[in-house]
Amino acid sequence: MKLLDGKTLSEQIKAEIAREVKENFLDKGLNAPHLAAVLVGEDPASQTYVANKEKSCREVGFMSSVYRYPANISENKLLEVVDFLNNDQDIDGFIFQLPLPAHIKEHKVIEKINPLKDVDGFHPSNTGRMMLNLPCFLPATPFGIMTLIERYGIETAGKHVVVLGRSNIVGTPVSLLLSRKSVHANATVTLCHSYTRDIKKYSLEADILIVAMGKQGFVTADMVKKDAVVIDVGMHRVPASDTKSGFRLKGDVDFAEVSRKCSAITPVPGGVGLMTIVALLQNTLKAAKKEIK
Amino acid sequence: MKLLDGKTLSEQIKAEIAREVKENFLDKGLNAPHLAAVLVGEDPASQTYVANKEKSCREVGFMSSVYRYPANISENKLLEVVDFLNNDQDIDGFIFQLPLPAHIKEHKVIEKINPLKDVDGFHPSNTGRMMLNLPCFLPATPFGIMTLIERYGIETAGKHVVVLGRSNIVGTPVSLLLSRKSVHANATVTLCHSYTRDIKKYSLEADILIVAMGKQGFVTADMVKKDAVVIDVGMHRVPASDTKSGFRLKGDVDFAEVSRKCSAITPVPGGVGLMTIVALLQNTLKAAKKEIK
Repeated sequence: MKLLDGKTLSEQIKAEIAREVKENFLDKGLNAPHLAAVLVGEDPASQTYVANKEKSCREVGFMSSVYRYPANISENKLLEVVDFLNNDQDIDGFIFQLPLPAHIKEHKVIEKINPLKDVDGFHPSNTGRMMLNLPCFLPATPFGIMTLIERYGIETAGKHVVVLGRSNIVGTPVSLLLSRKSVHANATVTLCHSYTRDIKKYSLEADILIVAMGKQGFVTADMVKKDAVVIDVGMHRVPASDTKSGFRLKGDVDFAEVSRKCSAITPVPGGVGLMTIVALLQNTLKAAKKEIK
Repeated sequence: MKLLDGKTLSEQIKAEIAREVKENFLDKGLNAPHLAAVLVGEDPASQTYVANKEKSCREVGFMSSVYRYPANISENKLLEVVDFLNNDQDIDGFIFQLPLPAHIKEHKVIEKINPLKDVDGFHPSNTGRMMLNLPCFLPATPFGIMTLIERYGIETAGKHVVVLGRSNIVGTPVSLLLSRKSVHANATVTLCHSYTRDIKKYSLEADILIVAMGKQGFVTADMVKKDAVVIDVGMHRVPASDTKSGFRLKGDVDFAEVSRKCSAITPVPGGVGLMTIVALLQNTLKAAKKEIK
């Protein structure tokens, strides 16, 4: 069994990005790429995510800014923030840490972002260009999964990929990316979800199983074909008396038993999550290089 | 075996549209919805398609215009045509009959169309909004298929839909539409294509089989599960000595043998093709009513 090690791979890609920042920006007297994040409210998980993104920016030499607003900010005020960030020439790309408070329509905020600065790849224009196989910013988690597959040389053409979970930010886009006509894709893809009858019937047929159900420990060994590749997108805090923090991170896959049956698997933590942050850095670099037009 | 009769259904929906044109437009002193088509070059098939669209417009009381340009029109000139149509307040929606001549980048032309007039649903913004389940113009053929499924009361939730063919205008969008969370969808969808190994293995598992491979007679009875629903998107002119025109229209499915095994099937002609034109009319009506914002 091969561990698809997001930690080592993400460090390697970050080193590549850092080198590019130095050679193509700083050494030429240009400003480093600049990622801004907007954080609304005080949700602890959101704060952690944003802090991790800032840390990753520092590691590769990016500039980063965080714009913080109280949870009761009005939708109109937040739309003005989008305008400001769209027009600020010093910011190459920006993201809104989701979820936003319930009184704000997320899609309204996202649709106001200039697609050329939409480094989370959530704007419909980027989503559509992704489906049409045109240059675009890919959403970070699917992009991270594709990078993992590519860098580990996992064969996808003609393979049966089964995706569990149809969210707009993971399951649906990754199923699209793997089915389209391009190198590192060309897979036959089945998209399963809460309405699927007998998920096990499908998961057992998967050469590559991508699990983004949001249910801790959902996939057990009896659901996985021998020698399958298993990619676990889940991320759950499980109480643990033997850790300093009082919890432990677990995925949607029962790693202990599935790892004994599959040919390759991503751990949680240290798998897809780290690749997601790297994908955001890659998108920001693309934005700074004006690669998407 | 039930025939999914696109002729009867499309006539019925056209009558509904005609009534709405009368009651909500003409009787109120408003202009009828207005669809414009741009036809570049002299391709006979394209001319036929455009003529059929004009005829359908007349049948429901829409206004229609056709803008004809020679095959050697420059890309810039065609982009100016887009500008003109975007700004003409008398035109509710317009389409470019595809394919365009090779020297013109189709995606450049399509991306210049105002998404609110993009009644073919090909603009990335509409594609993206479709994926995100936001209000949008659906591409005509997938929209027509969804209408057929809905009006014939075909159960989709939890069913296994297998789509053969991954084009941007049929296979990929219909696979998305059927897998998303909404009434008349919620299916488990497998998308197959030219890289799929052993297509028969998948097609035999389909409760609903949608065939958009572009290969005449590709699907034979041995590839279809007993009592499956079969939707044939193919459209091929096959030489025939016993018809006045010298040809006969055939689909991707061997109708004679598959129709004896399945529970329901669309004929060719008289199936999906007619629903596609109706979908275009429905989109134009939506545009005239400013339903998409």
